[in-house]
Amino acid sequence: MTAVRPAGTGLDWLATTGADWTVDPAVIASRRLDRSGWEPDGEPRAVVFPRTAEQVQAVLRGAHATRTPIVARGAGTALTGASAAGAGEIVLDLGRMNRILAIRPADGIAVAEPGVVTADLDRAAAEHGLRYAPDPASLELSTIGGNIATNAGGLRCAKYGVTRDSVLGLDVVLADGTRIGTGRSTLKGVAGYDLTSLFVGSEGTLGVIVAATLRLRSLPVPTATIAASYPDIADAAAASVALADARIQPVLAELLDEATLTAIDAAQGTSLRAAGAALLIVQTDGSPDEAERAIAVLGQGASSLRSTTDPAETAALLAARRQALPSIERLGRPLIEDIAVPRSRLAEAVREIAAIARRYDVPICTVAHAGDGNLHPLIVAGPHGAPISAAATRAGDEIFGLALRLGGTVTGEHGIGVLKRAWLEREVGPDNHALQQKLKALFDPNGILNPGKAL
Amino acid sequence: MTAVRPAGTGLDWLATTGADWTVDPAVIASRRLDRSGWEPDGEPRAVVFPRTAEQVQAVLRGAHATRTPIVARGAGTALTGASAAGAGEIVLDLGRMNRILAIRPADGIAVAEPGVVTADLDRAAAEHGLRYAPDPASLELSTIGGNIATNAGGLRCAKYGVTRDSVLGLDVVLADGTRIGTGRSTLKGVAGYDLTSLFVGSEGTLGVIVAATLRLRSLPVPTATIAASYPDIADAAAASVALADARIQPVLAELLDEATLTAIDAAQGTSLRAAGAALLIVQTDGSPDEAERAIAVLGQGASSLRSTTDPAETAALLAARRQALPSIERLGRPLIEDIAVPRSRLAEAVREIAAIARRYDVPICTVAHAGDGNLHPLIVAGPHGAPISAAATRAGDEIFGLALRLGGTVTGEHGIGVLKRAWLEREVGPDNHALQQKLKALFDPNGILNPGKAL
Ligand SMILES: Cc1cc2nc3c(=O)[nH]c(=O)nc-3n(C[C@H](O)[C@H](O)[C@H](O)COP(=O)(O)OP(=O)(O)OC[C@H]3O[C@@H](n4cnc5c(N)ncnc54)[C@H](O)[C@@H]3O)c2cc1C
Ligand SMILES: Cc1cc2nc3c(=O)[nH]c(=O)nc-3n(C[C@H](O)[C@H](O)[C@H](O)COP(=O)(O)OP(=O)(O)OC[C@H]3O[C@@H](n4cnc5c(N)ncnc54)[C@H](O)[C@@H]3O)c2cc1C
Repeated sequence: MTAVRPAGTGLDWLATTGADWTVDPAVIASRRLDRSGWEPDGEPRAVVFPRTAEQVQAVLRGAHATRTPIVARGAGTALTGASAAGAGEIVLDLGRMNRILAIRPADGIAVAEPGVVTADLDRAAAEHGLRYAPDPASLELSTIGGNIATNAGGLRCAKYGVTRDSVLGLDVVLADGTRIGTGRSTLKGVAGYDLTSLFVGSEGTLGVIVAATLRLRSLPVPTATIAASYPDIADAAAASVALADARIQPVLAELLDEATLTAIDAAQGTSLRAAGAALLIVQTDGSPDEAERAIAVLGQGASSLRSTTDPAETAALLAARRQALPSIERLGRPLIEDIAVPRSRLAEAVREIAAIARRYDVPICTVAHAGDGNLHPLIVAGPHGAPISAAATRAGDEIFGLALRLGGTVTGEHGIGVLKRAWLEREVGPDNHALQQKLKALFDPNGILNPGKAL
Repeated sequence: MTAVRPAGTGLDWLATTGADWTVDPAVIASRRLDRSGWEPDGEPRAVVFPRTAEQVQAVLRGAHATRTPIVARGAGTALTGASAAGAGEIVLDLGRMNRILAIRPADGIAVAEPGVVTADLDRAAAEHGLRYAPDPASLELSTIGGNIATNAGGLRCAKYGVTRDSVLGLDVVLADGTRIGTGRSTLKGVAGYDLTSLFVGSEGTLGVIVAATLRLRSLPVPTATIAASYPDIADAAAASVALADARIQPVLAELLDEATLTAIDAAQGTSLRAAGAALLIVQTDGSPDEAERAIAVLGQGASSLRSTTDPAETAALLAARRQALPSIERLGRPLIEDIAVPRSRLAEAVREIAAIARRYDVPICTVAHAGDGNLHPLIVAGPHGAPISAAATRAGDEIFGLALRLGGTVTGEHGIGVLKRAWLEREVGPDNHALQQKLKALFDPNGILNPGKAL
């Protein structure tokens, strides 16, 4: 790309940072939005493509001095507006800092730059018989930096934890350009305050991650995959709790509700709904014995059950989960919501969401990571291209209120971004919220790091 | 206990807090030290025994206003000076806030006050077929609040994580008496900055924990325990890495070096050393199949191997590990050190520590949580009752330097306290350290919370 840098943009200081940058409208347009559908006012002023941590430091030093807001960007797959950039802002695109700096199998760790695509790291680890466990559905696009900054979850996190559980240490550039290391290269350590966890999930508002030391895990022994249908969502939720009671730790436990099954059947010509009103897909990676016990537990109350260890059949059983979003997209523009409730309230949450859908006459299909009570209600918010309908917005608000009423949270894994800012204080309370704002001011006194996001 | 509150102590404001308190010298003496052997200057002024969060708030409000330093205390088992209190300070003993507020098996969580003894919570969970996984060796004495404030590790953390991994949310009183909730009651959630992790491991310097929402896990299926001796520490360390390579996740993997085995043999009349210069004790709680694979892996290169599933024999195999500290105490006053290194450097670390012992002519016995590279060199620091020998202090310093040189940390699980303050900045660097100090000032502007500790 040839850098387009017309005079008179007031951004000449960027030239001293050593980083590539551009004000080309096409490039700016390609880096302006994330996948939330939220549109910021105006256009960002420039896009910067650093290749080194030193260049990131120089950019932040300049931004700090000139009070220029900076939006760090990985792949822009956020669903919350977190990586959208508007008027007056500069996009700091970390996509070119995409080297895997080290894989140390004997230590069970990898060191990666922020722009490494999640799935690429996992594939590189696999060459050593290891894996990077966190697997957001966006893993072929999203970056390690974005995953860390949102504390991304994934299917396997039921057993292997969310992104935070795989982050041992970070290399971070602070708002004024200072660069610090946090955490460690060891699997365990407690020296000082846990700054690492503070940056994890901070949505680019406290510092820019320029490298991460990550935990790798052994590739699991062969898996078994089980798809069980139930007459009612309550039966399916009960089955997922029964697994825990039976000391079975599935790798993933995905729940699909009636509306989702109906949407998939309509789009794909399947007949999932006929087998039962709720589908639970479970995968184990422990011993064959654990798989057998899981089959026995899930079979109780199931109207139909299939299980397999064959890779092709596994893909077929998981297809229903993968087809959920594309199938729902046939109905219109989906709003991908994200709440979590205590595990015991899962069925109640799904039923209440269905009631909200009826009340507002808005289609809502719910899929859930049943193992950890994380639900994704997919609200059909109107035709594609059209703005989000008022009914969809109200239904969303009811769903957030429901999450809090059930003792849960308004975001299980996608984060606050701009879309849920109003809910954060309601969830955490005014004193906690005030403390978070003080933290933000401490880390970023000039308010240049992704302003207006996450808080 | 009758409260002894002579006039003229300048502490009359304590009477307005509703909490019991005393200036009885015997009570003060019993709450002045922790288990580190470190002696603060002078005596604390009083000990306060709150029974409610509101009383804690009132105490902190008064302390904040009068700038009176407060040392929160659980059971005082810290090994770092973290819970020692000296001149001018007030001990806030949380031992009477010891109710388990809820156990919710269907949600996999418990809610506990800070003074609950770790093992009591685990036993209460066991009544529901669950367990509280973090198991510091002090678990029959230490408290949940102390465990959280130090981010305590334990034997089982190789598989189930350290205390932080079991803390979902906290109820915290800040320095000025404000009370906030952090985190959540769900297994997953990303709303706002991760304040929970910031309080975990903060050693009473950022706030006082008055309740915690904790994750419970299923009790495991029956375990197998394996004790394997090796001719050399390098073989034992290699065996523990080979376990990971074979995708085996032991619950615990404890390594005892030659000096330790010799000390145990001398004290207990056993002949552990004769079987090999290093002993690795491993426990699995997966399937029988996993245990068999572990036996096969550990057998390679072992000079002797025993395994069992029988509870009595299990206790016998674990006895060596349990007897390590008491046996070493026969040699003199032990300094319990605590470093962690990348897993691949474990054998090197043990050998270097043995070399340090020879160089300073100080007995050092090393036991390690091999699974996560966390070593406890037990330095015999002179006769009981005598001050720590200069050679022992110098040997300790060499060990911390060694940890950093090997890419590790000066504390794997015990924390910084007062004893390792000088090392924190060397480990994390001046900019990180400065940021930690700013955090401390933000949370505790008057510097009343456990001043001089952790930073
Ligand atoms: C189809 C689809 C499926 C998805 N599935 C999941 C899922 O299963 N689980 C899940 O949790 N999320 C999911 N997401 C949401 C999204 O993919 C995740 O939030 C992901 O972690 C974002 O990564 P990214 O690289 O695209 O980050 P971006 O969207 O570019 O940025 C996200 C946030 O991180 C900040 N950021 C990015 N890089 C850095 C850095 N180096 N330093 C500091 N801050 C930085 C940004 O400022 C922004 O606040 C999905 C999204 C899509 C479109
Ligand atoms: C024999 C023995 C074995 C041990 N084994 C282990 C082990 O295996 N793993 C391990 O990690 N540690 C171990 N330790 C160290 C110690 O037991 C742990 O650090 C433990 O977590 C301390 O708990 P406590 O209740 O005794 O806390 P205390 O010693 O009373 O306090 C420790 C720190 O926490 C703070 N604190 C206490 N309660 C609160 C509260 N409610 N709010 C805020 N701050 C608070 C104190 O101010 C202090 O800074 C061992 C100690 C001994 C003596």
